[in-house]
Amino acid sequence: MEKKRVRLTVAYDGTNYHGWQVQNNGITIESELNRCLTELLGEEIQVIGASRTDAGVHAMGNVAVFDTVHPMPADKISYALNQRLPEDIRIQKSEEVPTDWHPRHCESRKTYEYHIYCAPFPMPINRFYAYFTYHMLDAEAMQQAAKYLVGEHDFQSFCQTGAQVETTVRRIYSLEVEEHGTNESAQPIAPNGREIIIRVCGNGFLYNMVRIIAGTLIEIGQGKRKPAEMKDILSACNRQAAGPTAPAQGLTLIKYEFL
Amino acid sequence: MEKKRVRLTVAYDGTNYHGWQVQNNGITIESELNRCLTELLGEEIQVIGASRTDAGVHAMGNVAVFDTVHPMPADKISYALNQRLPEDIRIQKSEEVPTDWHPRHCESRKTYEYHIYCAPFPMPINRFYAYFTYHMLDAEAMQQAAKYLVGEHDFQSFCQTGAQVETTVRRIYSLEVEEHGTNESAQPIAPNGREIIIRVCGNGFLYNMVRIIAGTLIEIGQGKRKPAEMKDILSACNRQAAGPTAPAQGLTLIKYEFL
Repeated sequence: MEKKRVRLTVAYDGTNYHGWQVQNNGITIESELNRCLTELLGEEIQVIGASRTDAGVHAMGNVAVFDTVHPMPADKISYALNQRLPEDIRIQKSEEVPTDWHPRHCESRKTYEYHIYCAPFPMPINRFYAYFTYHMLDAEAMQQAAKYLVGEHDFQSFCQTGAQVETTVRRIYSLEVEEHGTNESAQPIAPNGREIIIRVCGNGFLYNMVRIIAGTLIEIGQGKRKPAEMKDILSACNRQAAGPTAPAQGLTLIKYEFL
Repeated sequence: MEKKRVRLTVAYDGTNYHGWQVQNNGITIESELNRCLTELLGEEIQVIGASRTDAGVHAMGNVAVFDTVHPMPADKISYALNQRLPEDIRIQKSEEVPTDWHPRHCESRKTYEYHIYCAPFPMPINRFYAYFTYHMLDAEAMQQAAKYLVGEHDFQSFCQTGAQVETTVRRIYSLEVEEHGTNESAQPIAPNGREIIIRVCGNGFLYNMVRIIAGTLIEIGQGKRKPAEMKDILSACNRQAAGPTAPAQGLTLIKYEFL
C-alpha cells in the first residue's frame, strides 16, 4: 500500500491540556491526536507538530503531519478525526503534502496574538483567553516600543534561559498593538474596560519569546519602562534585561503560512 | 442599624450553571450570590435578579439587588464579594440605590447578543460562546427580516408556550445583524469562517424570546424562509409560526440601562 504524508491544521482550546508535546504526566494535544489517529487508521501514528505550544496556550491554526498507508483520502481525514477528538480540539483542514515535507524544516510565517483585558474587574467569559490586569495600559507607548523589535535581530533577551537553540536570531515581519473598546461588538469588554491585542508575525519564535515580548510590553504600558528602553533590552542579549513571561492563557497561535 | 439597598452589576460565564434562578437540583448564579453575600455580610441575603437567564446563557451585565444593614460601603462590596465568588462570576459594580428601587419594576433597556459561528468546522475557543453551524448564513437576508420586529409589537410568536405573562407586547428599539470575517482581529474565526452577531435592544423580553428570534433568523439565513415571512410570523401571534429556540450558549446579556 502506498504511503502518503498528511498535513493537519489543528485548532484547540489549551485550557485543559499540558501543552502540545507528549508527556508522561498529563494529556496533551499531541497525545490526543496520536491516540485518535491510531484508532481511526489502525496504524501506530505519531504526528510531528510545527509549534510545541505550552500548557494553557490556544491555537486556531497549529500544524501537524503524519504518514499513513490508509486509503482514506487526505481531505476526508479531518471529518473522521473530528468525530473522535474531544470538543476542545478540532481539525480545521487535512490535506496531502509531499512525503518529504516537514513543518519545522521549511520557510514559514507564524502569527500569534496575545490578548490583555484591562478593567476594574475580570470578565468571566474571557478569563481563559486573555490576561487580566486592572492597570489601564498605555497602548500607544506599547506600540512605540514594539517598533524596535521589527526586523531581523538576535532575540536572546526574549528567550527562556536554558532553551537549546542553534541561533537566537529571528525575523519579526510585523508587531502591532491594538486597543479595542466597548464600541466594537463581539468583544467581552465592560463599559469601563479595554482589550489590548498584541499581534506578531515572524519567521520563527524562540521558547516563550512571544510571552516575554508581551510581558515587557505590559511593563511599558504600565509606565514602569519607557518605550525607547526596548532598544537597549534587545541589544543586551540577556533574558534578565527583559520583562516577565506573560501568562499562557493570553496567547493564541493564529496561523501558519508556508512560503 | 440602617438598612440600605445595594445594586450589583453581575457578569458570569453560564456554562457551568443551571441558569440564574435558585433550584433544588443544581448550582445557579443566584444561589452562589446568596451564599457568598450571606457569608460576607453575616446576614441571610436573598438577591432579586433583573433577568433570570437560562442554563448556559452568559452575562456581562445582569443586575441584582439586596438589602443589608452591614456598614460596609456599597461600592466596596464588589471587591469583597469577588474574593468569595467562583472565578466564573464577577461583580462589575456595586452601588447604593433607593430602598424602594426594584430591577423588574422600572423602565429599562436590555441589550442581548446572539453569536453564531459559521465555518466548515467548530472553533474550540468559541465553542461555549457561539452557536456553531456549517451553513454559511445570509446575513443580509437576516438583517432584512430583523427590521419587521423593530418597534412595539405583540411578540407571542416568539414566546415559549406556557410562560405566565400579563402581556406579550414588548418594544424592540433596535435589532441588528452583523457579519464579521477574519479581517477583524480578536475574533476566533477560521480563514473560511464567519461570525454573525444578532444584537437586540428592547424594553423587555419574553421567555426565550431572543433565542426564538435567533432561531427564526437562522432559518432565514439558511434560505428556508424568505425575509418577508417574518411579518407573517409576527402577526400570527403563535409560537408554532416561528423557528426553533436557538441553543443557549450563543446568548449573552450585554447590558441593562435604567431610564
